[in-house]
Amino acid sequence: MTSPQPILFSQRRAYTQDLAISFLMQQAVENPQVISLAAGLVDPETLPVSEVLQAAGTILASPVTGQGALQYGTTAGYLRLRRLLVEQMAKMEQSSVEQLGINHDQLLLTTGSQQFLSLVCEALLDPGDICLVAGPTYFVFAGNLSGVGARAITIPSDEHGMRMEELENTLVQLEATGDLPRVKMIYVVSYYDNPGGTCLETSRRAQLVQIAEKWSRHQRLLILEDAAYRELRYDGPEFPSVWSFDKQHERVIYTQTFSKTFSPGIRVGFGIVPQELVTPLCDRKGNEDFGSSNFSQHLIATVIQQGLYASHLQQVRAGYQLKRDAMLVAAEKYFSDLPGVSWHHPHGGLYVWMTLPDEIGTGFESELFKKSVAEGVMYVPGELCYAQPGATRKQNQMRLSFGVQTPAGIDLGMQRLAIAVRHVMARS
Amino acid sequence: MTSPQPILFSQRRAYTQDLAISFLMQQAVENPQVISLAAGLVDPETLPVSEVLQAAGTILASPVTGQGALQYGTTAGYLRLRRLLVEQMAKMEQSSVEQLGINHDQLLLTTGSQQFLSLVCEALLDPGDICLVAGPTYFVFAGNLSGVGARAITIPSDEHGMRMEELENTLVQLEATGDLPRVKMIYVVSYYDNPGGTCLETSRRAQLVQIAEKWSRHQRLLILEDAAYRELRYDGPEFPSVWSFDKQHERVIYTQTFSKTFSPGIRVGFGIVPQELVTPLCDRKGNEDFGSSNFSQHLIATVIQQGLYASHLQQVRAGYQLKRDAMLVAAEKYFSDLPGVSWHHPHGGLYVWMTLPDEIGTGFESELFKKSVAEGVMYVPGELCYAQPGATRKQNQMRLSFGVQTPAGIDLGMQRLAIAVRHVMARS
Repeated sequence: MTSPQPILFSQRRAYTQDLAISFLMQQAVENPQVISLAAGLVDPETLPVSEVLQAAGTILASPVTGQGALQYGTTAGYLRLRRLLVEQMAKMEQSSVEQLGINHDQLLLTTGSQQFLSLVCEALLDPGDICLVAGPTYFVFAGNLSGVGARAITIPSDEHGMRMEELENTLVQLEATGDLPRVKMIYVVSYYDNPGGTCLETSRRAQLVQIAEKWSRHQRLLILEDAAYRELRYDGPEFPSVWSFDKQHERVIYTQTFSKTFSPGIRVGFGIVPQELVTPLCDRKGNEDFGSSNFSQHLIATVIQQGLYASHLQQVRAGYQLKRDAMLVAAEKYFSDLPGVSWHHPHGGLYVWMTLPDEIGTGFESELFKKSVAEGVMYVPGELCYAQPGATRKQNQMRLSFGVQTPAGIDLGMQRLAIAVRHVMARS
Repeated sequence: MTSPQPILFSQRRAYTQDLAISFLMQQAVENPQVISLAAGLVDPETLPVSEVLQAAGTILASPVTGQGALQYGTTAGYLRLRRLLVEQMAKMEQSSVEQLGINHDQLLLTTGSQQFLSLVCEALLDPGDICLVAGPTYFVFAGNLSGVGARAITIPSDEHGMRMEELENTLVQLEATGDLPRVKMIYVVSYYDNPGGTCLETSRRAQLVQIAEKWSRHQRLLILEDAAYRELRYDGPEFPSVWSFDKQHERVIYTQTFSKTFSPGIRVGFGIVPQELVTPLCDRKGNEDFGSSNFSQHLIATVIQQGLYASHLQQVRAGYQLKRDAMLVAAEKYFSDLPGVSWHHPHGGLYVWMTLPDEIGTGFESELFKKSVAEGVMYVPGELCYAQPGATRKQNQMRLSFGVQTPAGIDLGMQRLAIAVRHVMARS
């Protein structure tokens, strides 16, 4: 038997990298005794089994509503849910639907917000185009950028999110090198950032929109605001969206998801877009799947209308707040006497971002990572959260998730992690 | 207020066309009294409301199974369902799982088979690459090809599907023009074709695989077998898949869906691929959505295991068979005395393909289309079902769906359509 001729893949395939997360998942499978502070999964105990049962029962109780949910939907998504989400957005912005200034046509439903992020990249970015991102930033989105051959350029951030003077500086440099015409988008996780846990402070939100407007010399410089964790607020100030500072809604693309607050397995996310993006994104989505699960969209609409979403969200928040507290207490307990170790205190979301002394590398090949697995704990190496290769990628940080483990598991995981860090610090 | 700078879209966006189906949907909305023989929707009466209610109740009855369905799944899809589908495939091929010669890893779950078709195009086709398709062919797939900038070349077909001598002739010509290195794939709807209603006959299935092997001079020439309607068989012979003739499973990509036989709103389709395609397709899917609705996949697995899928399929088949019969009876009644009018007699699927005399155009701008809408009936113009622009695109054909209307509605629609055809024939 002769071996067959090789399969010739597309350029697009070559752009697509295996996500580093696969390595982590493999490690988790191979080391089942390990406490994972790496997984970005939601706490299974928070999953809304009874709420979905009730909503499914309502929908499927009559042939008419049942058939409506089981038939094809539209590419843009279930109209009733889109209207409900415009209302929800108005509430979050402390405004009326009329004041919001958008039509439900500008709200698109997708398979999680991940599909929305992917569609935005597909519709806007060509190979070589540039997207400015915070450092650190959501590492899956870095995969979306490289997946279309786009370049990520890192803007340093601090405890209040992306630094605006650094953004301006970078734009000045890009103009000097002639790269400004390729800069199409600025990506920002505006609430309880994954991985940093930070919120972009209010004055920076306003500035960000102004900077995008100012630097729209060659084409419209768009902002992609990822508000995945917006509703997972435990304490601290409430922030208006970056989107709300864009009064004409012509420059900021906004996305949010039900994966963290309700159920990732139902896979419902949404995006709100400038009018001119509606057709391009729907056309792309029509090509890709002509519509996400209609049944899932009917489920979400029903849990919202029955008040089950609001009550569930309160429970979820309360549960995660306890875990956030457990992680911060454990960090204090096990790490506060270690010189050069610091961490953010997030007011929401699922992550604590920890920085070690410069010389302590945290990558998959580092002594610390191996020692941590040996001690029975795992984290996400911070370097994975820097989208741009090279010098801007810091090597000495860790993303620690408190979503999945119990408070006791968090305490034990942090204790083990501290043992590993002490061990490596003692040897370096 | 000055107007903002223009948004610069990607090349990919420029490739993406609005689907012609949007025009038809708009026509349907604007003319609610019209009987649509155009819509490719499934019959709402067939939708499995009680089956999904039962399955949802089973899954959500316990926290463990409920949480499993509501948590993130994997990108490739729910393992239990993938195993069940390998078993189902074995049954359809009248073989054992062992004889089938594939692992469940080679079976990927997607958001309908549409997402699978899209992923295959993304992973394999660059702008300018060539895919050979039947004439007529599934028009949504034509959108997938143009969506990645690929070229479709039409191979004429007859009542037994794509003609193999025409396929060979085309490959000879492509070699002569130096285009052979760009020919990467042959797409075929092998069962009850949309739109032709035809099945590729058995000898052509074997030949197709041989031809693909023979012409794999520059790279592996792959076959994409779309078996969306395979299970909607009403009578006539059963065919082994094209895939089954590819003994090493290295050349044929196979896809099927639950949209037609169960529920399109649940959006579960799957594909079976050569081993070397598993990672490229999963990587792309990871980029796009890291997994379709896990809950939908758990629902399908449960209805299969509870025997609800098999019993539902029997009902669905029986219902559509009556409608198929109603349309063929009506065609005979209203069209048999019209010279130059002929139609296929499908043994399955949802479509009757009708050919009018050469001079009777059927397009959106034709007298016939307008007269039909005025008479209160709508069809899909056949020219939309030719993927390649130019002379190979026939202008005098119609796709008539019997899926949605009742038998009485089908009769009335066909009567109206015949009135329109007579009217136009009398004037031409």
